[in-house]
Amino acid sequence: MLDFYFSPGSCALASHIALEEAGAEYRGHRVDFGQNQQQSPAFLKVNPKGRVPALATPEGILTETPAMLVYIAQTHPAAELAAMDDPFAFARLQAFNSYLASTAHVAHAHKGRGKRWADTPEAIADMQRKVPETMAAVFAYIEDHAFVGPYAMGAAYSVADAYLYTVARWLEGDGVAVAQFPKVARHLAMMAERPAVQAALKAEGLA
Amino acid sequence: MLDFYFSPGSCALASHIALEEAGAEYRGHRVDFGQNQQQSPAFLKVNPKGRVPALATPEGILTETPAMLVYIAQTHPAAELAAMDDPFAFARLQAFNSYLASTAHVAHAHKGRGKRWADTPEAIADMQRKVPETMAAVFAYIEDHAFVGPYAMGAAYSVADAYLYTVARWLEGDGVAVAQFPKVARHLAMMAERPAVQAALKAEGLA
Repeated sequence: MLDFYFSPGSCALASHIALEEAGAEYRGHRVDFGQNQQQSPAFLKVNPKGRVPALATPEGILTETPAMLVYIAQTHPAAELAAMDDPFAFARLQAFNSYLASTAHVAHAHKGRGKRWADTPEAIADMQRKVPETMAAVFAYIEDHAFVGPYAMGAAYSVADAYLYTVARWLEGDGVAVAQFPKVARHLAMMAERPAVQAALKAEGLA
Repeated sequence: MLDFYFSPGSCALASHIALEEAGAEYRGHRVDFGQNQQQSPAFLKVNPKGRVPALATPEGILTETPAMLVYIAQTHPAAELAAMDDPFAFARLQAFNSYLASTAHVAHAHKGRGKRWADTPEAIADMQRKVPETMAAVFAYIEDHAFVGPYAMGAAYSVADAYLYTVARWLEGDGVAVAQFPKVARHLAMMAERPAVQAALKAEGLA
């Protein structure tokens, strides 16, 4: 049994969808950011970073979305969520996930989490103003170079689809019109039809 | 044969070290950031992101350090650079690399690459001022929670060591005294003794 810690609509949604796709046995635990629960002594014992997602496994705690996605895929091989036996295909999948984590998510975080990287209100406001530009640049790269179609990595569904869907859901709130990226827009609509996505959204109180 | 694109002392050093540890057959290509070569039409054909590292393989181009490190390990199994058969151990390794990519490297990048996320000179300066604080917090987490010892992931050397060494080399330049993190400081010294590290530094003109 796995224990999965999430905040609704955060990047944890990617792992939540992957757990559902995998048919994993897990218990979901909502971490209430409104009450700053991620900084509570109890949660810091789970994840000293004070962030979600976190996954408590029988062997210990895992964090970081790209790592958790591959762990879920690797421990549930029947679901075929990551082509790990092909080093190049696996590296492309990993590069896609890594770009979402270290470029896309970071660009988005400058809207609501600017205090991580600056102190003055003016700097925070300047960061927030730039988010529509940086997120649009990120998704232009995904649309033109990284997304294969119909799924992110091509013919086969993978954990990259769950992650892309999770980050693309942020676009409208970040001031970016999804319609300018037709492949990403079609992918969002296709993903919304998947039972695993609907189950994860429901578990997070988002559907 | 692989073609490897780097800029000296950048995060590409991690993959450069891994290529040397693996005994890979590769040609190194320096991308001259001083001449803005990463934005040249020729290099943008290699990597439309205009960043290093990039690795041209017989099957196509790979980017993103965490993906490249695992690719190098997986395609050179004799070097034993990543324990991929143990899903939990592999996920810990991946989480370590992902944290370096999306938290440590991002914190560091606010010193020299602030224009990615803000426009005004005041905001850029505020970001730069905060870098010693954020990088110290990142390495406090690594020292206290993530680093196992003597190598990053424990008894066995892995690609995480090459990546940690690469990022820890930036600390002094970022205004952070490495000595306050004794495990990381010992690791830096130990890594500097490895022939593969010395070969990669020499190839980048750093030793």
